Amino acid sequence: MAEITTYKNMVQPKSVDFTRRASVASIIGYMLDVAGEDAERKGFGISALDSASNTWVLSRLAVEITAQPKQYEDIAIDTWVNEFNRLSSTRNFRIHRGAECVAAGVSQWCMLNMESRQVVDMSILKDTYMQAMVDEPSPIPSPARLRPITPIGNASRPVVYSDIDFNRHMNTMRYIDLIFDNVPLELIEQNNGLRIDLNFIAEARYGEVVTIGWVNEGNIWSFEISSAERVLCRAKVEFK
Amino acid sequence: MAEITTYKNMVQPKSVDFTRRASVASIIGYMLDVAGEDAERKGFGISALDSASNTWVLSRLAVEITAQPKQYEDIAIDTWVNEFNRLSSTRNFRIHRGAECVAAGVSQWCMLNMESRQVVDMSILKDTYMQAMVDEPSPIPSPARLRPITPIGNASRPVVYSDIDFNRHMNTMRYIDLIFDNVPLELIEQNNGLRIDLNFIAEARYGEVVTIGWVNEGNIWSFEISSAERVLCRAKVEFK
Repeated sequence: MAEITTYKNMVQPKSVDFTRRASVASIIGYMLDVAGEDAERKGFGISALDSASNTWVLSRLAVEITAQPKQYEDIAIDTWVNEFNRLSSTRNFRIHRGAECVAAGVSQWCMLNMESRQVVDMSILKDTYMQAMVDEPSPIPSPARLRPITPIGNASRPVVYSDIDFNRHMNTMRYIDLIFDNVPLELIEQNNGLRIDLNFIAEARYGEVVTIGWVNEGNIWSFEISSAERVLCRAKVEFK
Repeated sequence: MAEITTYKNMVQPKSVDFTRRASVASIIGYMLDVAGEDAERKGFGISALDSASNTWVLSRLAVEITAQPKQYEDIAIDTWVNEFNRLSSTRNFRIHRGAECVAAGVSQWCMLNMESRQVVDMSILKDTYMQAMVDEPSPIPSPARLRPITPIGNASRPVVYSDIDFNRHMNTMRYIDLIFDNVPLELIEQNNGLRIDLNFIAEARYGEVVTIGWVNEGNIWSFEISSAERVLCRAKVEFK
C-alpha cells in the first residue's frame, strides 16, 4: 500500500477566466495533469504503455468544486488510486488552498489498444498497480451514469487541429470547454460551487462536426455531445 | 544593465499535437508565459500595473522555429528586454533543447489603460525598466508590419467563454490556434521550420463573430482575422 501523493501548483494568469478565478476547465486540468504525472512516476504512465500501443482512456469523471482559487494562489493537488480491476481503475483528487479543500474528484479509466481500438485487460499491470494503491476512500460519490437527454438548444462546430491529441481525437479538455461555452455567462460569474459528472463514450475525430445539446431543470444542466454518427459524451452540471 | 534570464520547462503531453511535438501555439505559449513571469519578477508585471488599471498588450510578435521539441523533452527559455520607449517595449526569447537553439522570438508590447482603453506613456515605469534592460540584440528580425490581404478562403466562429481573458477579450493564444486550425494538416505534419509574424490590431469581445481569411503564395500563408466591424489581427506564416 502507498500513500497519497501531493503535487504543488500555482494558479497562473492563463488558467483564470474573466472572473480572475481558475476556471472549472483549469481545475479539471490540474487533476488530469497530476493523473498523468503520477502514473508516469509510478510506472504505469502513457509512456510505459506506449510500447504495446496501449493508452489510458478516461471513461467517467465527477468533480465537486466549492471554491475556485484566484490568480497567483498556491494550490496543492492530492491524488491516489484506490480501485483497480481488469477493466477499470479509479483515481481520486483533492485540491487544497492552504488548509481549505476547494475541489475533489473521482476519475475512472480503462486501457485501450490504439491499433485494435479494443479495451485491454489491465491484469498485465497488476503488480505495478498494487504497489500504488492507497487505502483511502474516494472523496465524493462516484461519477453517475448519465442518460440520453431531449435538448432544448444546441450548437455545432468542426473538430480542428488545436482540438486533437496524438491520436487525432478531440482532447478531453475540449469537451469541458464546449460545455461551459454553452452555459449562460452569469451562471459562471456567480458560481459558488458545482458538481459535474461526465461520461466519455466515444471519440471525436479530426474534421467531424460535433454538436452539443443541452437542457436545464432549474440549476441542473444536462449536456450531450455527439457527431453525425454517435454520442460522444454526456455531462450533468449542478450549480449550488 | 541586467543579464538574460532563463526559465526551465518540459514539454508536457498537453503541449504536443498529433505529431507528438510541441505545437507552434505551445512554443509561443512558452514564450508568453515567461514574458509574464519575468515581468512579474522584475516589478513591472500585470499585478504591478493593475492598481492603476493598466495592463500589457502584445502589439506585434515574430517567432522563428527550426525544430519542435518532442514530448517530455526538457527546454530552457531565455528572455530579455532590450528596447524601451514611451510607447513600446521589446522583449526577446530563445528556446534551447540542450545546446541547440530550436526557436527564437521578438515581441513588442504597449501599455493600455483598461478604463479609458487608451495607450499609456510608459515613462512611469522607466526606473524599474532600466534595471531590467539587457545589452543583447534581438535574435531574429523584428516583426513585420503586415498589409491587408484578399482572402481566397475563410471560416467564422463566435467568441466563447473559454476564449476570453479577464478583460472579456479573446486571448492572444486563440488567434494562433485560429491560424493553424485553418492550415492544411499536411503542412503541420511535415513542418521543418517556419517564421510567423503577427500584428495585433484590435480585440475581439465575448459574443462577437470572428472571421479568419487566408491566401497563400507557395509556402507563404497570409491571414486576416476580423469581426463584423474591424480588423483584429494579421499574420504571415512562411513554411521553410
